[in-house]
Amino acid sequence: MSVRTPDPDPSGDDGLPESLNGLGNESAANPAWLSEFELAQARRRLPMLYVEAVPVRTDGAGQVTDIGILLRATPLGEITRTIVSGRVRFGETVRDALFRHVENDLGPMAFPLLPASPVPFAVAEYFPIPGVSAFHDDRQHAVSLAYVVPVTGTCEPRQDALEVTWFSPEEAASDALAAEMEGGRGTLIRQALAHLGLLR
Amino acid sequence: MSVRTPDPDPSGDDGLPESLNGLGNESAANPAWLSEFELAQARRRLPMLYVEAVPVRTDGAGQVTDIGILLRATPLGEITRTIVSGRVRFGETVRDALFRHVENDLGPMAFPLLPASPVPFAVAEYFPIPGVSAFHDDRQHAVSLAYVVPVTGTCEPRQDALEVTWFSPEEAASDALAAEMEGGRGTLIRQALAHLGLLR
Amino acid sequence: MSVRTPDPDPSGDDGLPESLNGLGNESAANPAWLSEFELAQARRRLPMLYVEAVPVRTDGAGQVTDIGILLRATPLGEITRTIVSGRVRFGETVRDALFRHVENDLGPMAFPLLPASPVPFAVAEYFPIPGVSAFHDDRQHAVSLAYVVPVTGTCEPRQDALEVTWFSPEEAASDALAAEMEGGRGTLIRQALAHLGLLR
Amino acid sequence: MSVRTPDPDPSGDDGLPESLNGLGNESAANPAWLSEFELAQARRRLPMLYVEAVPVRTDGAGQVTDIGILLRATPLGEITRTIVSGRVRFGETVRDALFRHVENDLGPMAFPLLPASPVPFAVAEYFPIPGVSAFHDDRQHAVSLAYVVPVTGTCEPRQDALEVTWFSPEEAASDALAAEMEGGRGTLIRQALAHLGLLR
Repeated sequence: MSVRTPDPDPSGDDGLPESLNGLGNESAANPAWLSEFELAQARRRLPMLYVEAVPVRTDGAGQVTDIGILLRATPLGEITRTIVSGRVRFGETVRDALFRHVENDLGPMAFPLLPASPVPFAVAEYFPIPGVSAFHDDRQHAVSLAYVVPVTGTCEPRQDALEVTWFSPEEAASDALAAEMEGGRGTLIRQALAHLGLLR
Repeated sequence: MSVRTPDPDPSGDDGLPESLNGLGNESAANPAWLSEFELAQARRRLPMLYVEAVPVRTDGAGQVTDIGILLRATPLGEITRTIVSGRVRFGETVRDALFRHVENDLGPMAFPLLPASPVPFAVAEYFPIPGVSAFHDDRQHAVSLAYVVPVTGTCEPRQDALEVTWFSPEEAASDALAAEMEGGRGTLIRQALAHLGLLR
Repeated sequence: MSVRTPDPDPSGDDGLPESLNGLGNESAANPAWLSEFELAQARRRLPMLYVEAVPVRTDGAGQVTDIGILLRATPLGEITRTIVSGRVRFGETVRDALFRHVENDLGPMAFPLLPASPVPFAVAEYFPIPGVSAFHDDRQHAVSLAYVVPVTGTCEPRQDALEVTWFSPEEAASDALAAEMEGGRGTLIRQALAHLGLLR
Repeated sequence: MSVRTPDPDPSGDDGLPESLNGLGNESAANPAWLSEFELAQARRRLPMLYVEAVPVRTDGAGQVTDIGILLRATPLGEITRTIVSGRVRFGETVRDALFRHVENDLGPMAFPLLPASPVPFAVAEYFPIPGVSAFHDDRQHAVSLAYVVPVTGTCEPRQDALEVTWFSPEEAASDALAAEMEGGRGTLIRQALAHLGLLR
């Protein structure tokens, strides 16, 4: 995982903190996985499959009341905002990848309610060159399946996510928040709100 | 509510048992609502808006493991199968109607997780004449917005629903079950399973 | 049809120009339909089922390039903006209602491509009291199933729709346009754009 | 591309006939792409992103009347059935990939109407080991975004697709057809039919 470039998905590649992951030897854990070097190579040649989750809180009737945004420190010390995001591994189901990344980014006490249907509310296409789509990622061409995930417990972000901040739907749709979101994900938040019937 | 005809949605009209509802005086409770007579008239002239819910149980990762089907005794003493189903009242939101009918049909301890998005997985069109669509309802032209609703508690059906039976996705998709479902709702169960990625 | 109140769906009730419809004798054409008086009564007691269509133009790869908005003169002489909108009749399928209203509002040469799936991109709930939801309609409680409909021909609005104006996705999402839309339909346009992956 | 194993997506890798593609020199055309060897390596390490299309014919009101299934000869001379299917290239949008594979598999005169929304009706997960999901692919772990694509012209399959056969919705849902489909795609056809409201 590069420390030289802005990294929208620091834990996305393997879902493990660096400390547990050793010296980037993802392939040590499973021979089917890629080494860091191989992964870096592949990222310049193939679209990477990602899952993303917009954490939400709901009231008793299932209506979304709050949108969870992750506050994150980049390797360069910048503070940015993002959502749950990470790569799907070889041999892993989309559902398992979604569960793994939600747990990694929100902690083991978040008690997420993953969607019953595997159809995402949006497909976000991240290109290394800005402007091809609403989304960009310096590192790679990534295509993410995006889901809304209600959480019922307490979020204790792990890894480099510093905090989950809860916003009202109105705040979450604001230009101010969108400007702070990594890789154009303000657009994804608005797509989520529209899907939920909460975008005005 | 008629006792003369098969009635696919016995609690649909008002969400109250007959005994609580008195002599059809729904309008007594709220002047905006229709009397039984007026409702019967309207049913022959206007499409009625319904909501329906397929109750499901899920595992820890949100994957649906069981489909809940209501076993019901008709006024004529027949035993049939159906799902949660009922009318949207004047001034009521779709979400409130869905919550009300889920609670009425599954009891107050079902602890349903209503979907965050108001977009249904299917729109089922019930016509009084069989064959116009996959669905029919002798009483009326009804258009229902259908949702999958995970339940986390204990279902204690009220009113004339005798029991909730839980089926595996394979059983729920079977021709045998479809043949027992009221008004063609076996098709709706299969649409739900397809939406969930569980139809083979 | 009232001439006293703002009327978001002037042609919605019967799908016929006033001139053909005579003095409100809808029931003359089909005894199952309601007289104007009966319809007015029902509107105060039952949610009305509507369909709505956002007309779009697409490029050769199916990407939406333009959003069609109807410019309309109200009975009071105001100019407002709206989309294709109208009631589903008793016995009519949602698809047939959608086709009928698209043809009525865009003319016979619009050559619309109705969606293959009957699942709407949004369910819009219009209440007579403003503020219950994003949508309101002085006349009634209406629940509309909303679809995106590409048109390939020439739009020649009939009835009281004066003109179809084509906007870019950016223009269609603007606050300025939303302020001119009837009944809160600017929100529906944004939901459509989000569904299309075109909302920034 | 292997000639030793069943190949569910013969044209999927590059969208070019073998004859034009030369000796696996995909990378000659674009240095960002993978050589055949590199692609084969990556396939054992990363999930591959695919798009799939179920070709359909519709009537004037947009209702699907026929489902198109490709009859295909495998390199071993077997005749199997499949749908439009192929890989998304590095730097390519999902829409462009879908258009490219539809044109490759159905010919330049098919005049497809690609969906306005980028949200697929289903996400099909193909695993190299049968039984993990409904779908399998000996060669790789592939995740495909599946779309319904109406075609308005004449299909003249290119490459190794011998023929497009049109089936009624009932025929397309049959066990007999499902048994002939590659990689479990009979399930995907049924999901498409359910999405279209055509599965009984």
